[in-house]
Amino acid sequence: MTDKTNTPISVVGLGLMGTALARAFLKAGHPTTVWNRTAAKADSLVAEGARLAPAIGDALGGVTIVCLTDYSAVRALLGDARLDGTTLVNLTSGDSAQARETAAWAEKQGARYLDGAIMAIPSSIGTDEAVILLSGPAPDFDLGTLGTVSHLGEDPGLASLYDVAGLTMMWSVLNAWLQGTAMLKTAGVDAATYAPFARQIAAGVADWLPGYAEQIDQGSFPAEVSALETDARAMAHMVEESEALGVNAELPKLIKAMADRAIAAGHGGEQYPVLIREFERPGE
Amino acid sequence: MTDKTNTPISVVGLGLMGTALARAFLKAGHPTTVWNRTAAKADSLVAEGARLAPAIGDALGGVTIVCLTDYSAVRALLGDARLDGTTLVNLTSGDSAQARETAAWAEKQGARYLDGAIMAIPSSIGTDEAVILLSGPAPDFDLGTLGTVSHLGEDPGLASLYDVAGLTMMWSVLNAWLQGTAMLKTAGVDAATYAPFARQIAAGVADWLPGYAEQIDQGSFPAEVSALETDARAMAHMVEESEALGVNAELPKLIKAMADRAIAAGHGGEQYPVLIREFERPGE
Repeated sequence: MTDKTNTPISVVGLGLMGTALARAFLKAGHPTTVWNRTAAKADSLVAEGARLAPAIGDALGGVTIVCLTDYSAVRALLGDARLDGTTLVNLTSGDSAQARETAAWAEKQGARYLDGAIMAIPSSIGTDEAVILLSGPAPDFDLGTLGTVSHLGEDPGLASLYDVAGLTMMWSVLNAWLQGTAMLKTAGVDAATYAPFARQIAAGVADWLPGYAEQIDQGSFPAEVSALETDARAMAHMVEESEALGVNAELPKLIKAMADRAIAAGHGGEQYPVLIREFERPGE
Repeated sequence: MTDKTNTPISVVGLGLMGTALARAFLKAGHPTTVWNRTAAKADSLVAEGARLAPAIGDALGGVTIVCLTDYSAVRALLGDARLDGTTLVNLTSGDSAQARETAAWAEKQGARYLDGAIMAIPSSIGTDEAVILLSGPAPDFDLGTLGTVSHLGEDPGLASLYDVAGLTMMWSVLNAWLQGTAMLKTAGVDAATYAPFARQIAAGVADWLPGYAEQIDQGSFPAEVSALETDARAMAHMVEESEALGVNAELPKLIKAMADRAIAAGHGGEQYPVLIREFERPGE
């Protein structure tokens, strides 16, 4: 893996994110080539030292970062271009099927193809906070200047799957916090007072996940801590309390519904991770 | 606050939890009186040094911990007993309305009343892991021998509200992790491989909560990090990916539905915590 800051890099697509990526490479000292459909969007980067590729073909042949609106834009742009010698790093947002299809196409065109996802906002690019997920062949370059980079495995769909799984966690923590905040506001507790408690619970439960994962991988869910049918009684309290307070009860109801289904399927005496059976199949 | 381990304590109700509480007091050296409707349940505790109260009245008059099946059992047991001189600590599971009603009744009977919730399983009682929430008048005793004790405020409903809010967070983190685990299993990633990633996201997002809480308390939600309408596009990806993979999509759909409603209400240009408006009112 090369981490030399003199590796030439091309950035294709200069939206907010592409511009942030190109700027981070420039700042780190990489010779940086940029391309955008509307060339004027490159003006500030060129003023900062970037080279404007006169045609898309001039941005290919080395390490090329692509960050466009969607996967169809990537295919429309690169068309039937030969990509021999190009390491194509596609950071465009999309799903795992699109990533795998685009990988197959790009490899046929001669590229080394990595698919990636950026778990960050443009302003955090270039800091450790910016998480960049990559999947595909092991990278032969270093994107560490952009943020915290993880290579997840050979399957090009993995970056997109980890991304969407991580987003599900992000919004779930936020929604659970909002649910609790709404409940406590009815008692005159302000959000700032409740937040540290919610933070502590979320971080504490996060610590259980590696242990619970073992139950899933072993397919065995002994009720070492608590049985699902005991949990379900507390879930009924949670739903009733939300309704009695007049706050939203949809999240509590969904939590209870998933557990009730697992209990109906005979898992009431097992531990919470047995719910993986319900999460693995389409809902009712 | 007295933290002497020679404070006499009574424990009323010897289910799994009540027994664990009484045992922790005994181990810490408190003179411990126990009472249970079926006296035989006290046998092992008596062998360990507890005094069996011949009648419920003999368990009153000092600090009395009550841990029964539900609030109606508490009222049925204590009936119209005078409670002068008794500090009644009710750790029975219930909702905030029951806690407030019971507080009003107990105070009329002459008791100092605290309502509490135990966020722990019986086997963790006596360790720091056992979180005991108390609300009502400031405690004049120390339950620190049972675990990590927090006094939340004067409103006797607070312990129950924090408890149920914390449970919502707990199950939400677990469900989001299960959703992600189900998605990644379709790509052959085992639960143990994904768990550390989920843990890191959950803990990272938990750190945002105090800052986001300020937006709620100020009632102002500038899109400093991301606007809700941008989030909603990624939510659509999340729903579509879940459906394409054939896993459960109900949690992703609920996340998206809540955001869509806030956008329809005109909040698309604001930041995520503006969703408090949706969580504060009954669902559609």
